This record gives sequence, C-alpha cells and structure tokens, in this order.
Amino acid sequence: MFIDRVELEPDELPKYWYNILPDLPEPLPKPMDPTGGDKIRFLEEVSIPECWRQEYTDERFVKIPDELRELYIHAGRPRPLYRAVRLEKALKLKKVKIFYKREDLSPTGSHKVNTALAQAYYAKKAGIETLVTETGAGQWGTALSYAAKLNDLNAVVFWVRSVYTWKRDRRTFMRLYGAKVYASPSKITEAGREGLKRGEKEGSLGLAISEGLEYASKKRNTAYALGSVLNHVLLHQTIIGLEAKEQFNKLDMYPDIIVACLGGGSNFGGISLPFMMDVLNKKKKIRFVAAQSEAAPNLIKGTYRYDYGDVAEYTPKLKMYTLGHKTRMPPIMADGLRYHAAAPIISLLRHHGYIDALAYPTDEKSIFQAAKLFTETEGWIPAPESSYAIRATIDIAKELDKKGEEKIILMNISGHGFLDLYAYRKKLFAK
Amino acid sequence: MFIDRVELEPDELPKYWYNILPDLPEPLPKPMDPTGGDKIRFLEEVSIPECWRQEYTDERFVKIPDELRELYIHAGRPRPLYRAVRLEKALKLKKVKIFYKREDLSPTGSHKVNTALAQAYYAKKAGIETLVTETGAGQWGTALSYAAKLNDLNAVVFWVRSVYTWKRDRRTFMRLYGAKVYASPSKITEAGREGLKRGEKEGSLGLAISEGLEYASKKRNTAYALGSVLNHVLLHQTIIGLEAKEQFNKLDMYPDIIVACLGGGSNFGGISLPFMMDVLNKKKKIRFVAAQSEAAPNLIKGTYRYDYGDVAEYTPKLKMYTLGHKTRMPPIMADGLRYHAAAPIISLLRHHGYIDALAYPTDEKSIFQAAKLFTETEGWIPAPESSYAIRATIDIAKELDKKGEEKIILMNISGHGFLDLYAYRKKLFAK
Repeated sequence: MFIDRVELEPDELPKYWYNILPDLPEPLPKPMDPTGGDKIRFLEEVSIPECWRQEYTDERFVKIPDELRELYIHAGRPRPLYRAVRLEKALKLKKVKIFYKREDLSPTGSHKVNTALAQAYYAKKAGIETLVTETGAGQWGTALSYAAKLNDLNAVVFWVRSVYTWKRDRRTFMRLYGAKVYASPSKITEAGREGLKRGEKEGSLGLAISEGLEYASKKRNTAYALGSVLNHVLLHQTIIGLEAKEQFNKLDMYPDIIVACLGGGSNFGGISLPFMMDVLNKKKKIRFVAAQSEAAPNLIKGTYRYDYGDVAEYTPKLKMYTLGHKTRMPPIMADGLRYHAAAPIISLLRHHGYIDALAYPTDEKSIFQAAKLFTETEGWIPAPESSYAIRATIDIAKELDKKGEEKIILMNISGHGFLDLYAYRKKLFAK
Repeated sequence: MFIDRVELEPDELPKYWYNILPDLPEPLPKPMDPTGGDKIRFLEEVSIPECWRQEYTDERFVKIPDELRELYIHAGRPRPLYRAVRLEKALKLKKVKIFYKREDLSPTGSHKVNTALAQAYYAKKAGIETLVTETGAGQWGTALSYAAKLNDLNAVVFWVRSVYTWKRDRRTFMRLYGAKVYASPSKITEAGREGLKRGEKEGSLGLAISEGLEYASKKRNTAYALGSVLNHVLLHQTIIGLEAKEQFNKLDMYPDIIVACLGGGSNFGGISLPFMMDVLNKKKKIRFVAAQSEAAPNLIKGTYRYDYGDVAEYTPKLKMYTLGHKTRMPPIMADGLRYHAAAPIISLLRHHGYIDALAYPTDEKSIFQAAKLFTETEGWIPAPESSYAIRATIDIAKELDKKGEEKIILMNISGHGFLDLYAYRKKLFAK
C-alpha cells in the first residue's frame, strides 16, 4: 500500500524553535529610532516581555515550554507532510516530486496559530490580561482570538475595514472566541481618526497596527501582539520547517526547492528558515521562492532600506525591503499578502541573494485556477494566500520537469479556504 | 507532559468494516415492496453493484480494498481521539471524563466522506461514470462531489431548495469539485414538478431523494448514491467506531456512554456499532444516546413500522422508526438532522431497547450555547449537527458527575462549523 502522508507522533513535536540570527551572513541591522529611543521604549512597553527578549536573542535554539508544547499538540501539531501524487499526475510530471505541509489543519485555519499560542502563553505568564492586535485577511485576528481564549486572556482586534466589511463570517468566528473586533480606521484612536481625516476609509494593515499600538499603550495590563515581520514571530513559526525537516528525514529525502507565499514573511520564514540553516552552513543547496502579489511585491519592487512598520509611525524603523509605509496597495482576495514590507530577516537574506521572488497579477485569475486544480486533485481547499505558493510550485515544477530535472519541491499550505468560498465564487464562477 | 490526543498511525487504519447484521438480536426485517418487486428492482438498477451486495451481506467483517484505504489515508484517516480536558474543566467535572472523535477534520468537513469515498470507489470499479445524489444540509452533497472528483466521476446533486438558497458558499464548494447542483424541487424531474405543483417550494430530503432516483434511472452509466439510512452506508461509517475502539485500547479504557447526533443515523451508527457489537455479545454495557431535534424526533415520536424512504415513493418500504414520509418538518440550522425516519439497523436496536434518544427544541438556543462553550474551551468549531451531541454530552456529564459516578463519555464531532458561521451569528449574536 502506498502512503502519501508522513506523520510525526505528538511526542515527536520539536522541543526547540530555531533562531537564525546567529547564523545570518551579517548581523541583523538594529532598529533605527529617529526619536533617539522613544519609539523603541514605546514598543518595549507594549510588548510581551518574553517576546521582546526573544526578538534579539543569540541562542540558536530556543526552548519551547512544555505547557506550550501541550497547547501545540492540542491544536493538532505536528501537522502532516503530504506528497502531492495526484497533483503531479494531473501535471503529467515525470521527474519532479511535490510535497506540501498542512498548516491548513489549524483550529482557526492558518499557520498564524503557531505564534498566537506562543504569544498568548507568554502574555499570561507575565500577568497580562488583554492582547491587542491588527489583522488584514483576518487569519491573524482569528488565531489571536483563539489563542487568547485558550489562555484566559481578552483579545481586541483592529481589522482593516475593507476586509472587515465583507468577511462577516470570520468576524463571527472571532467573536465566538470572545474577541472585541473594531473596523480600522476606527474613531476610538488618534491614529484612526487621523486616517479617517485623510480619507483612508478602506484602511490598511499599517494603519491597523498604529491603532492597535496606540490602544494597547493606553490600557493597563495590556500588550500588543504582532502576527508577522518581527523576529520572534518568525522564530515561533520555525516549528513548521523543523517538523518538515524531520518528516523528510523519515523519507530519507531533502527538498531542492522551497516555495511559500510572502506578505510580511511569517509563513515563508516558518517553513524556510530551518532549511536555510543548512544552506548558510554550506551543507545543502536549496532554491527558496517567495510567491507574492503585484499588489505588494515588496521583495521585487521594494528597496532595502530603513522604514516604519506602520502608517502612523509608532514603530521604530526597521531595515527591510519596502514599498514605503504609506504606499496604497490595490485590494486583492489574498489580503494576507498585502503588506508594504518584508520581515527584516527575510529582507537581509534576500539582499544576500538567498531568496528568489515572483509576483502574480492582481486579477488573481491564475491563482484561483491553481487553487481549483489543487482542490480537484488533492481534495483540500487552500486559502487564497496559500494558492500563490501552489501557483508558483506548479509553474516551477512544469519548467523543471520539461528539462528532465529530478527535483523535490516543498510548498507550504499556510491555510484553508473554507472561509474564502466567496472569493472562489467571484474569481471562478461569477459571470 | 500531558497529551490529550490519541493518534493511530496511517498503517493502523482498520482493514475491515464491521457489519452488524449477523449480530442483531433478530434478523433485520426485509424491505417491503407494495408493487411486488418493481421498486426493489428499480433500486437495484440505480444502485452501485458492490454497495447493493454489501446491503444484505452476512459477512461480519467486510474487507476494505487497499486502494480505498489509500484514499482514506489521503483524506486524513485515522482521525484523532481527544480527551476534552478543557471542556471538563469548564464544567467543573470531578468524576466524568469526556472524549471526542474528530470527524470534523475531513476534507469537506464531515464524516460523510467515509461512505462517499467507498461508494465512488466501487462505482468507478463498476464502470459507472456519473453519481447522483440528494443533500439536505449540504455535507453529503459536498462529500460526494469530492469523492466523485477524486475517482474521476461526474457528480449531480439535488439539494433541498430551502438550504440551497442560503448556503451559497457550500454551493461554490461543490462546484469547485466539478459537481452539477440543482435546487430541489427542480423542473427537470417528474417528482420535482409534482412537488412544485403541490406547492412544496422549500423542498425536503425525501423529495430530493425522489428526484435523484428518477434522474439516475433515466441516464446511462449513472448510479444513485445514498448518504445515510441504508445498511451499507452505516457499514462504511463503522470505520469511525473501529478506530475509536483501537484508540481506547491504547489508553486501556472503554467508554460507558456513547453520544452522537441522529438524523438518518449514519454518524450515530458509525461511532456506535463497533461498540454495540460488544454489548450484543454481552461483553460490555454501554448507554447509547442519540441527540435529535424536535423538528424530526423520529426515534422518540416516530412509530416502528414500514415506510418509504422518499416523498414520491420510489423506494421500497423499510421498517423504521418514522414520522411518516410525507411529514413536513420545521426548518432548523442543523438541517442534517431533519429526516423523517431512522436507519433500519438503528431502528431495530432502538426497538430492542439498546438506544436512548433525546430531542432538543427547534429554537436551537441551547445547542448553539453548547457549541460556543466547546469552541471556547476545545478551540474547534463544530457543525450545528455535532453540537447536538455536545449539548447532550454536557447535560449527561453534569448529571452523572453530580451523582459522583466515574463514567467515560465518548461523543462524535461529526463535522466542523467553518461553513456554518452564518448560523452561529443568527443564533448567538443577532439582536
């Protein structure tokens, strides 16, 4: 019998996250604070203390606390690795093999739960009572609402208004976990009111971050939780790649190409960094491919420079590939890919030539066609964001196979599409 | 470290389904055909041959073909068994332990995939090209669309109109798998046109079955696939209980009470029958509880007699607890529980006193409150149907715990609620 699925036992769950900071080709540039320290102090004050410590730690492996491992296991980790035999067959591949990691099996439907649980766990330990955050597509907001509830914390979510308005089901989902959800720009923060004055009715991730930071800074026992970009977020997400490495070990295989979608970089970093370690240590060669949208092609059209993480400039500046923190980006269904900059770690690796990037047109036709083919063959419905990785994987696989190259591609299915059927209808079936 | 989840390895997937027919306290009453054979011949002609054979087989264990086991494994089987530690804590239970089986992890969101894959597999082997079916809540229609696609078959779905109209996302989901979906009553069948004439605009499961049977009988290489009630459907579903038994084995435990929701009986039968075997063989004592809706309390208010399975009387009569095949049932969110009769196997066991039943009010308030508590504590969002099992489990657990009884309850989470957030909003958050 052929088994196209590799599992790890619950007690095989990794005991450590991988911190890439000490292995980077040059030290990660420090944040720059034009106010001489105020913004960094501000950020430290609203952060979860342990996350702040992890942000610049030089430990290569950071221990995952046992209680948190229990939460991961409860949430279904380790997650399976699949060989996409049916997709390969549909593509008539002869040489190239495709594998995919199943982050879509998470309780709220995406990989975001990996860092949400960690942040909520550390917040609870530190005596924090409320977590505040921003969300774009809604995946991060839901994940944090879930993690907060499971750790007996309150959650407050500022949600980009253009998405908030039509994703009513996801709003219900967050509320089901007890979260307070505000459309951003809102009238309850200075940053929100300023945004409304500027006529930014639709909102943006950068503006929602500003609102959340401001809100958190004014409440007691309240911290801000970020869902992407920062080092500690990528650290928590390495659980994905660490599991996948162990799973490839069991197969006695190793991927030649790793593909993930990239907005801010948390799912891309999650699957890539544990493999990147082998590349930086010159043990392996891998081609890393970031699948982006032309709505926010930060790694492609952006420049590597210091920029703010949010619209209202509450954060310090970070060295990133950025399109500019006030850039307006056209709306797309894969709203999770719509961020002006890529994580500092990813940006530095891109700068040193370790990461390739592709961007797909904003009409997303080819994206949803890839999603449809994946659903028809593998049976699992992927999130629009994950479908960028599927599209890129299909394109790369076909090209390599034509050349007769025997390569192994690993892609990350960052989330499921059960809550994105409206987008599927609009893109595939609307006349 | 405490692990609240019991897994089986992919190769530990059961190799046989359990057929309860030879173990029943009396032989299952044969179908009755008022036409002297025409209806039975009709049903045989539109059936998948191997499923027809399995319907009355006396083998106690029916081999699951290897290729089908591969499909099950691809679809994520075996599925985990969870201990509901967090729910127990919220209920302040001291003596009673609650376990739940995770059928919600299926590709289309419910246990229906277990029989859909089997039926599609056998249909393909028999040279059938198109599968036709009915659906109520939409779970079965989606499962069959998925299974048909994975086995290179066409799917045609007649969907109860009252549900078809508002579950637009689920319609997109079926179409994504390539299915043709018609609202029932439709104008393309005699039964549909008759129904429309009678003014049955909203439709019913019984009428949709009539339409599908008629449609299938008039097309070449086309068979009808049923999602519940029949013996072979329950046979395929025993994979749920067989896995659960193996998982309790690993824990060196055994359930005292088994709870599942019941419409036609496929998920109830699936989790219960493998345990029922031990009860019928006098090895164990278990209390089996069917959680029903007052909209269709067939086991409670129904009578045990011969009745048709569909409105237009295409099927032979089966001996079942029935409310009458033309009974109109009020709409509820858990539409999957809205069927006039219970499966013949379940009905016979009920008749002999092996099964308890509870029915909950059609306002479904207490159901969605239970669903909310489950989501808040365990983190997974259950289907409205599954939430009946959760409600009943909570009620029973509290009562037993108060009496100080050390009991183990097993419940089946038959599906997830990602596509039912509209129902959650209406029931919990609408003003």
